[in-house]
Amino acid sequence: MLTLYDYLDSGNGYKIRLLLALLNEPYRWVEVDIIAGATRTPEFLAKNPNGRIPTLELADGSFLAESNAILWYLAEGSAFIPNERLARAQVLQWMFFEQYSHEPYVATPRFIVKHFPADSPRRAELPARLVLGRAALAVMEAHLQRNRYFAAGRYTIADIALYAYTHVAHEGGLDLAPYEAVDAWLARVAKYDRHVLLTRRP
Amino acid sequence: MLTLYDYLDSGNGYKIRLLLALLNEPYRWVEVDIIAGATRTPEFLAKNPNGRIPTLELADGSFLAESNAILWYLAEGSAFIPNERLARAQVLQWMFFEQYSHEPYVATPRFIVKHFPADSPRRAELPARLVLGRAALAVMEAHLQRNRYFAAGRYTIADIALYAYTHVAHEGGLDLAPYEAVDAWLARVAKYDRHVLLTRRP
Repeated sequence: MLTLYDYLDSGNGYKIRLLLALLNEPYRWVEVDIIAGATRTPEFLAKNPNGRIPTLELADGSFLAESNAILWYLAEGSAFIPNERLARAQVLQWMFFEQYSHEPYVATPRFIVKHFPADSPRRAELPARLVLGRAALAVMEAHLQRNRYFAAGRYTIADIALYAYTHVAHEGGLDLAPYEAVDAWLARVAKYDRHVLLTRRP
Repeated sequence: MLTLYDYLDSGNGYKIRLLLALLNEPYRWVEVDIIAGATRTPEFLAKNPNGRIPTLELADGSFLAESNAILWYLAEGSAFIPNERLARAQVLQWMFFEQYSHEPYVATPRFIVKHFPADSPRRAELPARLVLGRAALAVMEAHLQRNRYFAAGRYTIADIALYAYTHVAHEGGLDLAPYEAVDAWLARVAKYDRHVLLTRRP
């Protein structure tokens, strides 16, 4: 059976939880408290030398890190990755966009707001990060004004990767109202939501 | 024929130039002056709404962005991507590591040092970025102490992706001497170097 090392509040972890639910794949879930430094212990670094969750352990004891690489591994051969060469690369294009141009500016503000007190020096990062978060949303908006999904004309792991932090972007201070096509896409892909938890209910 | 929109000094562009040389694939090369804002024109944004190079134009007029997605597209079916499912995902794991944990801290310092004057406020970013650049090199070092390549036990596009900015990391102020396994890997993969230019010779 698969084992997922994860943290409930992580959108990167949520991507994997959502795909596993869509695939009806059973797995063991192990919470790793990133706030308490549990990804920096020698025991965890032996699983993933980059010290990050999510990390997936396969039945044979191998480990795989990086949320979008885990999505690719799990979705291979399923309907969530297209077969056509260019469409496959376009799925990857949007997943690399997500990690480079979106996650640091949409996910990290949410993390700062949720985990650092109002007087923390980390809060000083927020304005510059939110400017780039709006730029990422504008790139998504331009694409979604002409396309219903990110690649292959249908719901793929590119949509899962971008849904994870976009649907909770308001928690980091990003107002989605100006991005009408993004909002319509969120509503469109919400039907795939399997009510997987992203955050503990208060 | 393929057209590569690119900027000579870009390591992300260099990845594509190196793979195309290894594949003996002919292509048209179009320089886009990122310093002069040529990736922000309406004409270029129509090719890539995220306004970044490299961007690849296929023979049919489709566009593909994100250097590592372009590597995947070009290498599919070649010796530079393995066939085995886990090894393929491990190639992606290292390419996502490269974009999230390596490029902003190894490539961006080089960009700042090369393109911003000594009194530029951007220089203030250097110390914090270089700390994380050393952390990325330490993760590579730990892996390369036990492995000759990043995935599949052989040279793949994961090595191309990480070679691009690592072999010029000193230009951004990173000393590779403490990373002996990284240094040995650079020497090992240098045989694949096709003397593709990364920077105009002075």
